[in-house]
Amino acid sequence: MGKVNVTIPQGTRDFGPEVVRKRNYIFETIRNVFELYGFQPLETPAMENLETLMGKYGEEGDKLIFKILNNGLDNPAKEKQAREDFEKVLQGKNAKGITERALKYDLTIPFARYVAMNHSQLTFPFKRYQMQPVWRADRPQKGRYREFYQCDADVVGSTALLNEAELANIYATAFEQLKIPVEIKINNRKVLMALAGLTAGVNKMMDITVAIDKLDKVGLEKVKEELVQRGLNPDEISIVENYLSISGTNEEKISKARELFRTTAIGKAGLDELETILNCPLTTDHSPLTIDLTLARGLNYYTGIIFEVKANNVQIGSIGGGGRYDDLTGLFGVPNIPGVGISFGVDRIYDVMEELNLFPEDVYTGTQALFFNLGEKESASVFELAQGLRTKNIRCEVYHEAAKFDKQFKYAEKKKIPFVIIIGEEEMKSNSCKIKNISTGEQREIAQNDLSKFSFK
Amino acid sequence: MGKVNVTIPQGTRDFGPEVVRKRNYIFETIRNVFELYGFQPLETPAMENLETLMGKYGEEGDKLIFKILNNGLDNPAKEKQAREDFEKVLQGKNAKGITERALKYDLTIPFARYVAMNHSQLTFPFKRYQMQPVWRADRPQKGRYREFYQCDADVVGSTALLNEAELANIYATAFEQLKIPVEIKINNRKVLMALAGLTAGVNKMMDITVAIDKLDKVGLEKVKEELVQRGLNPDEISIVENYLSISGTNEEKISKARELFRTTAIGKAGLDELETILNCPLTTDHSPLTIDLTLARGLNYYTGIIFEVKANNVQIGSIGGGGRYDDLTGLFGVPNIPGVGISFGVDRIYDVMEELNLFPEDVYTGTQALFFNLGEKESASVFELAQGLRTKNIRCEVYHEAAKFDKQFKYAEKKKIPFVIIIGEEEMKSNSCKIKNISTGEQREIAQNDLSKFSFK
Repeated sequence: MGKVNVTIPQGTRDFGPEVVRKRNYIFETIRNVFELYGFQPLETPAMENLETLMGKYGEEGDKLIFKILNNGLDNPAKEKQAREDFEKVLQGKNAKGITERALKYDLTIPFARYVAMNHSQLTFPFKRYQMQPVWRADRPQKGRYREFYQCDADVVGSTALLNEAELANIYATAFEQLKIPVEIKINNRKVLMALAGLTAGVNKMMDITVAIDKLDKVGLEKVKEELVQRGLNPDEISIVENYLSISGTNEEKISKARELFRTTAIGKAGLDELETILNCPLTTDHSPLTIDLTLARGLNYYTGIIFEVKANNVQIGSIGGGGRYDDLTGLFGVPNIPGVGISFGVDRIYDVMEELNLFPEDVYTGTQALFFNLGEKESASVFELAQGLRTKNIRCEVYHEAAKFDKQFKYAEKKKIPFVIIIGEEEMKSNSCKIKNISTGEQREIAQNDLSKFSFK
Repeated sequence: MGKVNVTIPQGTRDFGPEVVRKRNYIFETIRNVFELYGFQPLETPAMENLETLMGKYGEEGDKLIFKILNNGLDNPAKEKQAREDFEKVLQGKNAKGITERALKYDLTIPFARYVAMNHSQLTFPFKRYQMQPVWRADRPQKGRYREFYQCDADVVGSTALLNEAELANIYATAFEQLKIPVEIKINNRKVLMALAGLTAGVNKMMDITVAIDKLDKVGLEKVKEELVQRGLNPDEISIVENYLSISGTNEEKISKARELFRTTAIGKAGLDELETILNCPLTTDHSPLTIDLTLARGLNYYTGIIFEVKANNVQIGSIGGGGRYDDLTGLFGVPNIPGVGISFGVDRIYDVMEELNLFPEDVYTGTQALFFNLGEKESASVFELAQGLRTKNIRCEVYHEAAKFDKQFKYAEKKKIPFVIIIGEEEMKSNSCKIKNISTGEQREIAQNDLSKFSFK
């Protein structure tokens, strides 16, 4: 055997059969829940025009966009222009002559671009889900990849809180079906806005939220230090502290927060919205919806309700998040399309399910039965039987060549095929077959005619 | 409304809800058939190392590979090196400093790379299928895209003809299920090799096959002219003409070809193989397996049985093709892994199904029922009913806000939702609801409790 002289790019992954099946189990579960709520599938290309993406993810984000080199640069007639364009690239600028396309960085901007391009044909509210890979030139590390899937659902063209209530239910239903114990945290950017208004001023909202977002990790004292650094005075910090100390049931939190924000209209509006959503019942008790007044979500564009999902009993970041935004497509020339969306963190969900051993046993089963191959005559007869089973939707294989039992058993075991079917000379004469359950070792003999009625489970 | 100032890259496509559903119908049908025969899913990254791809697709192919620009080129410390590297790019050479990754061009080379990297862990024969996008910087035109899906199944690590028989059945079953009338053509590169041996010599095989491959399009006289140009003498051309004139049933073709190739061992071997496969019965009469001695398949690496699928009654190229090859992974340091594979042309299959109107009606149905929203009180009650239906796996929506009937009807119509459910003040009192079938106009009143038993079809 020669030396294998090939690798894959850092931060990318091959998904072998078992992993694809497990990932598909997650995707299919979530997809079915999306469809139950009337969300429709959308797929956008891997590549977008570079100008569609640039400037949408902040300066750091721009640097992580994978750009595609234009083809045909080895054209002598255009050499001079190409060199000039390359000088721009060296200065960190874009140059259409060198690159004008890029791999998508998330699903939100391509979705916005799609809605802007097609808004006159779309039926609003437009409810779409999208499960596709995105690419980021991030430094690869454990759990962070350069190619990974995002899995988003958004409703655009509606300001109704019904949407938020449905999205909370989508989380609850999907995680119940995946059997992942979670807590769905909910807050409202309007409440955070009200807090900023009561203290350092509305334009300081991000400063305050960035600080309190860290409460879980660093504790109250450090949060207060950061607030000092961010320019809040002791009175203001005491209001924030008062806010952060709000605890109890959802109802208690709302009632205490109402007290704190009794003078601010936006605070009242935010709390009213939270209350409305909590009053819409969840289909399941599996995943409680919990107000977390410290929840902020980093992304700047959220303006209303925000969500975050945490898996219980597992040390891992959030496995879902989302929220309401005021303007999806303004950047692309189509104003006034508000929306709300959620996202599932599929890679982390996969890790949680592995850790908690939650994948159902049958997710591993591809082929249900392997016909042994005992020679030319036998395999011809077995081929027809296998064809018959396949017309009954039973997934089966015929071992590709006559070989020792041991070798054929090993093939079945390695491929996790639960049953083997043995038809030798004797069985051919009596039109029977032996069926062996690999995991129990149990063996039965049945008529070949009864094979399609056998339960291969 | 502002001006929409955004487009997508030439040769790429957005797939809206209806198109995704139709494409998924094709993918799911083919996937299920692959699984019936024990093929397992594999997914490889969109990007590969550039050196994995370069030199594998011929000079023309190399030019069509989309290369990814390295990030961080705006690093002053490396400016000089970057300029030097760029000079190489201008000369049509690769330069790792500028680009070291590329988008995959097909599924075969990444599959070979995967098998080479993982051969010590894989169970052979390894039967995998793969349905993923690939990218080519081709000039876009009708039916030719820069991003398109390939859909391949291969068995590697086995020389058994059982595999070819199964792949023929996979074609037959999949096209039967898709209801596309097709002819599955089959030939053997060994037979073409024998023809070359009898005439201009084995090393002229490609010259001969390139010429006869055009028989359908240009007719016999033009083929003969080309053979003259390619250096065949009149005696040799007469043998080719004799070969091309072979007609009749599969059995007649084999018997006449046996006569022609009676002196060549490789010809006999090729015909024996064809006969073996024809003796393995197909599960369906839907798609006949026909010997086509003029079938050549352009790709150089085929060495045995070759396949091609043509849709009947539609003017379109082949919608599937494949064949046997001797060596999948030698290029990557792992020799002696032979295999055989087939491919489905999903874009063309889609076009054929559109033209022949073959998509089943229910492929369009996402949401099955829309609850009208007649106000706050009504919608709260309706929300709970909708939740109840969803727990019974009925896909339904609540219109997002109270609106005129007309507007809500239009939403249902545009989204092809077959039923609307109306619950107003009166129905709330009587715990009933009105169900209207949008296409027939038929309206029924039933108890709300019976809603989950209603057949929303």
